[in-house]
Amino acid sequence: MRTHYCGHLRASHTGETVTLFGWVDRRRDHGGVIFVDLRDRTGIVQIVSDPERTPGSFATANDLRNEYVVRITGKVSQRQDGAMNPKLPTGEIEIYADEIELLNAVRKQLPFQVSTAEAESVREELRLRYRYLDLRRERMAQNLQTRHAVVKAIRRFLEDEEQFMEVETPILTRSTPEGARDFILPSRVNEGEWFALPQSPQLFKQILMVSGVDRYYQIARCFRDEDLRADRQPEFTQLDMEMSFLTQDEILDLNERLVCHIFKTVQGVEVPRPFPRLTYAEAMDRYGTDKPDTRYGLELVEVSDLVADSGFKVFSGAVKSGGMVKVLPIPNGNEVISNVRIKPGGDLFKVAAEAGAKGLAYIRVRESGEIDTIGAIKDNLTAEQKQEMLRRTGAQPGTLLLFGAGPDDIVNPTLDRVRQAIAKEMKLIPADRLNLLWVTDFPMFEWNADEQRLEALHHPFTAPRPSDLDDLKTALAQAYDLVLNGYEIGGGSLRIYQPEVQRQVFETIGLSAEEAQEKFGFLLEAFEYGTPPHGGIAYGLDRLVMLMAGEESIRDAIAFPKTQQARCLLTDAPSTVDAQQLKELQVASTYRPKPKPEATEN
Amino acid sequence: MRTHYCGHLRASHTGETVTLFGWVDRRRDHGGVIFVDLRDRTGIVQIVSDPERTPGSFATANDLRNEYVVRITGKVSQRQDGAMNPKLPTGEIEIYADEIELLNAVRKQLPFQVSTAEAESVREELRLRYRYLDLRRERMAQNLQTRHAVVKAIRRFLEDEEQFMEVETPILTRSTPEGARDFILPSRVNEGEWFALPQSPQLFKQILMVSGVDRYYQIARCFRDEDLRADRQPEFTQLDMEMSFLTQDEILDLNERLVCHIFKTVQGVEVPRPFPRLTYAEAMDRYGTDKPDTRYGLELVEVSDLVADSGFKVFSGAVKSGGMVKVLPIPNGNEVISNVRIKPGGDLFKVAAEAGAKGLAYIRVRESGEIDTIGAIKDNLTAEQKQEMLRRTGAQPGTLLLFGAGPDDIVNPTLDRVRQAIAKEMKLIPADRLNLLWVTDFPMFEWNADEQRLEALHHPFTAPRPSDLDDLKTALAQAYDLVLNGYEIGGGSLRIYQPEVQRQVFETIGLSAEEAQEKFGFLLEAFEYGTPPHGGIAYGLDRLVMLMAGEESIRDAIAFPKTQQARCLLTDAPSTVDAQQLKELQVASTYRPKPKPEATEN
Repeated sequence: MRTHYCGHLRASHTGETVTLFGWVDRRRDHGGVIFVDLRDRTGIVQIVSDPERTPGSFATANDLRNEYVVRITGKVSQRQDGAMNPKLPTGEIEIYADEIELLNAVRKQLPFQVSTAEAESVREELRLRYRYLDLRRERMAQNLQTRHAVVKAIRRFLEDEEQFMEVETPILTRSTPEGARDFILPSRVNEGEWFALPQSPQLFKQILMVSGVDRYYQIARCFRDEDLRADRQPEFTQLDMEMSFLTQDEILDLNERLVCHIFKTVQGVEVPRPFPRLTYAEAMDRYGTDKPDTRYGLELVEVSDLVADSGFKVFSGAVKSGGMVKVLPIPNGNEVISNVRIKPGGDLFKVAAEAGAKGLAYIRVRESGEIDTIGAIKDNLTAEQKQEMLRRTGAQPGTLLLFGAGPDDIVNPTLDRVRQAIAKEMKLIPADRLNLLWVTDFPMFEWNADEQRLEALHHPFTAPRPSDLDDLKTALAQAYDLVLNGYEIGGGSLRIYQPEVQRQVFETIGLSAEEAQEKFGFLLEAFEYGTPPHGGIAYGLDRLVMLMAGEESIRDAIAFPKTQQARCLLTDAPSTVDAQQLKELQVASTYRPKPKPEATEN
Repeated sequence: MRTHYCGHLRASHTGETVTLFGWVDRRRDHGGVIFVDLRDRTGIVQIVSDPERTPGSFATANDLRNEYVVRITGKVSQRQDGAMNPKLPTGEIEIYADEIELLNAVRKQLPFQVSTAEAESVREELRLRYRYLDLRRERMAQNLQTRHAVVKAIRRFLEDEEQFMEVETPILTRSTPEGARDFILPSRVNEGEWFALPQSPQLFKQILMVSGVDRYYQIARCFRDEDLRADRQPEFTQLDMEMSFLTQDEILDLNERLVCHIFKTVQGVEVPRPFPRLTYAEAMDRYGTDKPDTRYGLELVEVSDLVADSGFKVFSGAVKSGGMVKVLPIPNGNEVISNVRIKPGGDLFKVAAEAGAKGLAYIRVRESGEIDTIGAIKDNLTAEQKQEMLRRTGAQPGTLLLFGAGPDDIVNPTLDRVRQAIAKEMKLIPADRLNLLWVTDFPMFEWNADEQRLEALHHPFTAPRPSDLDDLKTALAQAYDLVLNGYEIGGGSLRIYQPEVQRQVFETIGLSAEEAQEKFGFLLEAFEYGTPPHGGIAYGLDRLVMLMAGEESIRDAIAFPKTQQARCLLTDAPSTVDAQQLKELQVASTYRPKPKPEATEN
C-alpha cells in the first residue's frame, strides 16, 4: 500500500522506507545509474537504481519508459550537496529503489509528452482528444486541484460558518425564464412531452425559500444551448445561493467574507474588505462597462456638454441625437499609438469597429497645451473648450485622447474595448492584483427595440428598490454583480416576494396575467402561501477557477470540456443514435444533410 | 438580522434579547394572551404576546394566522414550572415579543396543514404538488437535513481522511454501457446528432484513473430511462468513487471506515467493523438473494439431494431438470400461517406466484416428530428422509417448512420474498438494527437466454479473479456489493486494466473487436497509455438517505422527486414545447394521440 505521495516527501523523511505509486515522468541513464522522475498528482520525486546498491530493482528500472506505471519501495536519502534541485519541492532527497514493480506499460506512441521537463506546446485539439494524458500534465493536474480546493473552501465556509444547507434540484425539469435557449429531451413515458435541462436552479431555489430552507446552496450544473462563443460551455457549473431574511447589505457582506475565505484558503491571499462598490451608472460613466477592470486607470471622461454645439458635426450630432461624446485619455499614448493604428484599417480602428463605432476621433496633446488633431476638430474648438477638455481629462504633454461619439450603447462598449486593448499593450495591468468590486443599482428594465417593449435586465423576479415603486419603468433594481479584474464572476438580486409588486413588474414588461401563469404559474402560486423576503446570487465557478488558476480559457478549468463546436473530442459526443432508440421515444430527426451542389446546365 | 434559529434556543439563553425569523406554526388565544409557535427549519419556539406586558406586538400577534411569515424580537424567559413542555427541545423557555413584524401573509387556503400539531395524513400527490409546504413540515425538513448531513459527512471523510479529489464529469455525453435505456437529447449545433445523459460516470471515472487522479469522488447525478418501478427515479444521485493502486481488501476497508463515519457523524451510531462478508454463492444459498436482510434468521436450507429420487414428482422433477428444492423453515409458523394463505388464492401463494413459483409445498411439524402435509409428500418421504429434513432445517414442534422446487432462478427469488413477508408479519425484524455486510465473488457472467450468449453481470470492465483467468466463462469477479438491512446501498469492482484481459472478456460476451471499438473505443485506447490498477464503487445516495431517515420511499429523501409516472407535480414537467423549438433542433415528435374509439356500424 502507498505510504506517501511523491510530492509530499521532504528531507525530514530521510531514512524512512516508503512505497510510492506513480508514472515515470522521465528516465535517465547516467553511466549505468538509472534516475527515474516518479510522478503522481502531487508532484515528482527522484528514484535511483544502480546494479551495486539496488540490484533487486535495476533490471526493471533499466526497462522503464516514459509514462509506465510503477510501484516503488525504497529508502529516502538526502541528496549530495551538488545534486540538490532547488526548483523541486522534493529536490533535497531521492529514493534508492529496493523494489520496482512494473504495473503497466505504455503500448503506443505518446501523442505528446506529458513531462514538464520536455515542455512542448500542444494544440488544444490534441489535448482534448487525449485528455487523460493532458490531465497528467503538471499544469492541468494543478488546475483540477485548484478547482477542488475552491469548491472545498466554498462548502466549508457556507456550511460551517453560515449554516447553509446543500439541496439538489432537478436536472430533468421545465424551461426556466433565463432567456437563453433550452436543451430539451423527449420523455418516453409521457408521450409527446419534453423535459428541459435547467439554465439555472432559479425557480427551485426560490421555491426552497418558500419551503423554509432559508439558506440554500448548491454547486449546480446548468445548461444553455447558446450560439458558440469563445468563453462559454453548453454545460457549466454555478455556485448557486439563496437566502431568506437578509438585506442587500447583509448579503453582500456575507459574500465578501465567502470570497475572502476562498482566496485565503486556496491561495493564501488576504483580500481587503469591504469591497469597493460602484453603481451601474457610475461604472458605465467611468469605464463604459458594468464589469470594469479597475486594476488600472484610463478612466473615461464625458464631454458631451462641451461639444454639444460644436461645429464638428460628428460630436454635436451625436449629442443632438440623444447620444454622447466621451474621451479615453491615454497618458503617453502619443508615443505608443500611431495615427495609422487609429485610422481605417488600423488595429485599434478595428477594435472600435467591432463594437459598432464608425471610427475613433483623436487629439494628441503636445507641449505647452498645443494639440494635434484633424482640422475639423481643431477648427471647431474654442480655446476655452480646449482648456476645459484638457483639464477634465487630466491630459499632460504626450497624452492621446481617443473619442467616442454616438449612441450610448455604441460609445461605451467601444471605449471599453479600446481601453482594455491599450491597457494590455501598454502593460498597465499589475500582475497578481485582485480587484474585486460590486456593481449595484442596475436598471430594472432595458428597451427591446425589436419587440418594442421593456424587458427585465436580469429576470422578472428581481426586486425594484422600494423607493422606485412609483415609477417602475425607470426603477433601479436591488441587483448586484461581483466583478473580478474585469470579469463578472457572480451576480444576483433581492427577489420580489409580494404578489402585487410581481404583477406590476409583469405588466411593465407586457406579460399578461395568462402568460405569466403559463410560464411561472407554480412559482406565483407558491408565493401566495407565506413567502419570506429573500435574495440570492450565483457565481460562475468555471470562470472563477480559470481566473484563480491564471488561465485564459474556461476549458482549462474543466476536466472534460466541450469544444467551441459543443463537441467532446475524448468521447466524440454527440453522436448519431439507433433508429430504434428514436422510435421508442417517438421522435424523428428532420435534419437532412445538404446535398453537394451539382453542376447545373446553362 | 437574525440572532438565533428558533430550535436552538435553550434555558441558557434566558434574559437575552433575540431576533427570530420564521413561520407561524400555530397561534392560540388564551384569554387575551396570544401564544405563537414560531417555526424555522431547526424547530419551534413559543412566542408570547399580551396587551400588558408586550403592548408593542399585541395587535400584530392578534392578527397572525398559520404560516404567516414574521420577524420577532423579544426577551427569552424561563417558562413557569407548570408550563414547561418536555416534548419540545425549546420547551423550557418562551419569548416575550417586544416587536412582531409581519413580513408576509398567506393569501389562499392552505391545501393541508403544515404544523405537526395538526398532524394529518396527506396524500402524496398533494404533497408533491405543494412541495414547498410539504418541505416545511417537520418530517421532510428533517429528511433534507439528514441528506445534507450525510453528504457533508461523506465529503469530510473522503477529503480530510483519505485525500480524495472531487471532479465533475459531464452530463451531456455519450451512451454509457450500463444496459438501461438512455435519455437522449438533440444537439442543435451538431445537426442530426444526440447527446446522452450519463447512467453513471463509469467511463469518465476510469478515464480519471488513467489521468492520474488516483482517488476520485463525486456526488453525481445519474439518469436512467427505465420502466416505472416503485423505488426508482429517472434521475438519481450516486456517491461515485474510484481509486488506483488499492487491492479489493483495501477498498472494502476504506469503504467500511467511510460508512462507519457517516453513521457515527449523522446519527451517533457506532457500527462495528469489519463488516461481515458473504460470497454471492453463500448469500444465494442461505437467503436466496444477493442482498440478504440478516437482521433475522429464517435461513433457507437446500434439500435437493434428499428428495432427488422422491416419488413426489414436483421435488424429484425439479432436481432432475437441473433445478433445486429448498426449504424456508419458520419457527412457530404453524400458529401464524394457515393453509388457506399458502394455497392458491392465499396471500403467501400470491407472493410466491409473483416471483414465478407455481405454488408453495409445506410440511407442518407437530409434537414428537409428527408432520402434517399433503399425502403426496408424506407418502414419498421415508422415515430417514424425514428425520434428516427436520435435522437440517432445525425444525421444532410448531415449525412450518415452506418448500420451493424448480429452477434456481425461480426458487431463490420466491423464498426470498416469502421470507421477507413473513419476517415483517411476525415482527422478526429488530428496530434500529443496522446490518451491513459485503457480498463478494459474484459470477463474471450470466446467461442471456434470449440472446443465447453470456453477458456481464456487472459491466464488461469488471476484473475477474486472477486465479480464474483460465476459464473466464465460469470465472468469479472481483466485485462487491454493500448491503444494508436487505437493500443494496453500494456496489463496485476492481476493473480490468490489461488490454489482453479486456479482449478476452469481450470475446466471452460475444462482442467483436469492431463493436467494442464502436462502443468503448476511447476507453480502450486510453488503456494503452499507462493505466494503473484501479477499482471503485458507487452508492445510491437517495436510498441510503431513505434508510437513514426511516422512510420507505426514496421520494421522501429527495427535495423535488418525480412521481412513478416520471412527472414533477410541482412544475408539471415534462410539458409540450413550441413547434419553433423543435424546428430549431431539427427534430419532430412522431407521437400521435390515439383517437378515441368511435361507435362503429354493425
